[in-house]
Amino acid sequence: MDSFSIRLTLALQRVQNPLVVGLDPRVDQLPEPMRPATNSAEDVARAYRDFCKGVIDVVSPLVAAVKPQAAFFEAIGPAGCQALADVMAYARAKGLLVLLDGKRNDIGSTAFAYAQAYLDGENSPWKSDALTVSPYLGDDSIEPFVSKATEAGTGIFVLVKTSNPGAGMFQDLTVDRRPLYRHVGDHVARLAEQTMDESGYGAVGAVVGATYPEQLAELRSTMARAWFLVPGFGNQGGVAADVAVAFDENGLGAIINSSRAIIFAHAREEYRDEYGVKRWQAAVEAATCDAIDALRSVI
Amino acid sequence: MDSFSIRLTLALQRVQNPLVVGLDPRVDQLPEPMRPATNSAEDVARAYRDFCKGVIDVVSPLVAAVKPQAAFFEAIGPAGCQALADVMAYARAKGLLVLLDGKRNDIGSTAFAYAQAYLDGENSPWKSDALTVSPYLGDDSIEPFVSKATEAGTGIFVLVKTSNPGAGMFQDLTVDRRPLYRHVGDHVARLAEQTMDESGYGAVGAVVGATYPEQLAELRSTMARAWFLVPGFGNQGGVAADVAVAFDENGLGAIINSSRAIIFAHAREEYRDEYGVKRWQAAVEAATCDAIDALRSVI
Repeated sequence: MDSFSIRLTLALQRVQNPLVVGLDPRVDQLPEPMRPATNSAEDVARAYRDFCKGVIDVVSPLVAAVKPQAAFFEAIGPAGCQALADVMAYARAKGLLVLLDGKRNDIGSTAFAYAQAYLDGENSPWKSDALTVSPYLGDDSIEPFVSKATEAGTGIFVLVKTSNPGAGMFQDLTVDRRPLYRHVGDHVARLAEQTMDESGYGAVGAVVGATYPEQLAELRSTMARAWFLVPGFGNQGGVAADVAVAFDENGLGAIINSSRAIIFAHAREEYRDEYGVKRWQAAVEAATCDAIDALRSVI
Repeated sequence: MDSFSIRLTLALQRVQNPLVVGLDPRVDQLPEPMRPATNSAEDVARAYRDFCKGVIDVVSPLVAAVKPQAAFFEAIGPAGCQALADVMAYARAKGLLVLLDGKRNDIGSTAFAYAQAYLDGENSPWKSDALTVSPYLGDDSIEPFVSKATEAGTGIFVLVKTSNPGAGMFQDLTVDRRPLYRHVGDHVARLAEQTMDESGYGAVGAVVGATYPEQLAELRSTMARAWFLVPGFGNQGGVAADVAVAFDENGLGAIINSSRAIIFAHAREEYRDEYGVKRWQAAVEAATCDAIDALRSVI
């Protein structure tokens, strides 16, 4: 199995754009034809599965990867976890990379169990190509993910500077005249260098929000070998110009996530009248293509 | 429904000890009679469920709470998630509080989905009484957990100073002449005060490792209204004397977790010969009682 970084590079070269589509199903925002018959966990799980498969059918020829958000599936219980596994398998079968957004983290021996769950390739029940990881517990809590990722050809994205309004509360605190996120970024940069292969990037990347473009530029310059997974584009307020700094001279090095603005495009003013809820997949396609165009214009 | 803090206080007064038993099933450490017939996810999930139920049968008259570790259940896939839900329901039916160790964290709107999954009482699929939460994303990422917890009578424990050897890498970095974990602790202390009720404690507690007794004492003195969930006692090296400082003058304010040293007591030298694998539940009971005695001696 090629490394995650090589597989991501090849996928991006194929589609010629850095967009990642976030799969964040929310029952009250599903297009009317995809709503569950009842609010039972089984019906909602089935609706999430079918809705996400419908999104994947549209976006799989257009983008390199999808990013399912574990929280929305866990919110409906074990049936949701099964739906998540089904959606992930379907995306892989359609040729997409699957980046699971779970922000997992724990002490080493427990982190190893999370790595088995998500990063062990064909031996993993969930078979994600990459997983987001939260760094507060330090290096020995990240190491099991790195080991498993390099062994199995998968990857991780460590939270460095997140996209939410309150991100700065701890991430911006000053340590030795630099914000904390720079210290986390330095550790991720080292791990990226250590795991780098002929793609020029490593198995360890960083989550850096589109909503803080100055910090995005600053981190890009100090983390040359780390893939950036950039959330906050679309509904959270980041625009294409904000993320231009995330790319290297080949237009690689970063992938840009958009979730709600794409999967719930049927409800957006730009698409609502033209497509309506019955043609919600056409709205998803239009929103995907528009986001791709916007991103291509800045690379 | 009474608040989490009141329910925890009542449970601790009933059992007169602060021990929490961690449910961390690992297939290769299960006592031989509980091993799965095959390595299929279904068989391993069934073994985990039956093993944890067997532990709960032993410890439910002795302790106030159990702490299932989500990672070990997720490691076997959706069938493991169902087993986790079954184990949590069984523990609650046996009168135990259930503290789910998931270290969840995300931006606000996604954190809300995790809060629905775990902290919404009878409306939650997983129905935990409390959830561990990782703080790196800042206040707006913690707030949805706090809102749901106060509304539904549940609680959270935010990672402040963890028990692993590498905990200090980020947590000990100096910000304004104090380590980062003190800044996180200050925020948790405020949330605990804001959610305090007649129990004298709030719905927002802190995870503070037994393996750093000096920091445990320091944090206790600055976080008067926060319950402490103290991991690292037992297999990670913390001893009862280390955790004495975690308690208030009534012997409340802290709960002490032990996982492997209890659930896999059949493999410990102290119990192996006396009980053997066939009497693994008797070994669990002996280890539980011994841990309780050690903790009572220092309160």
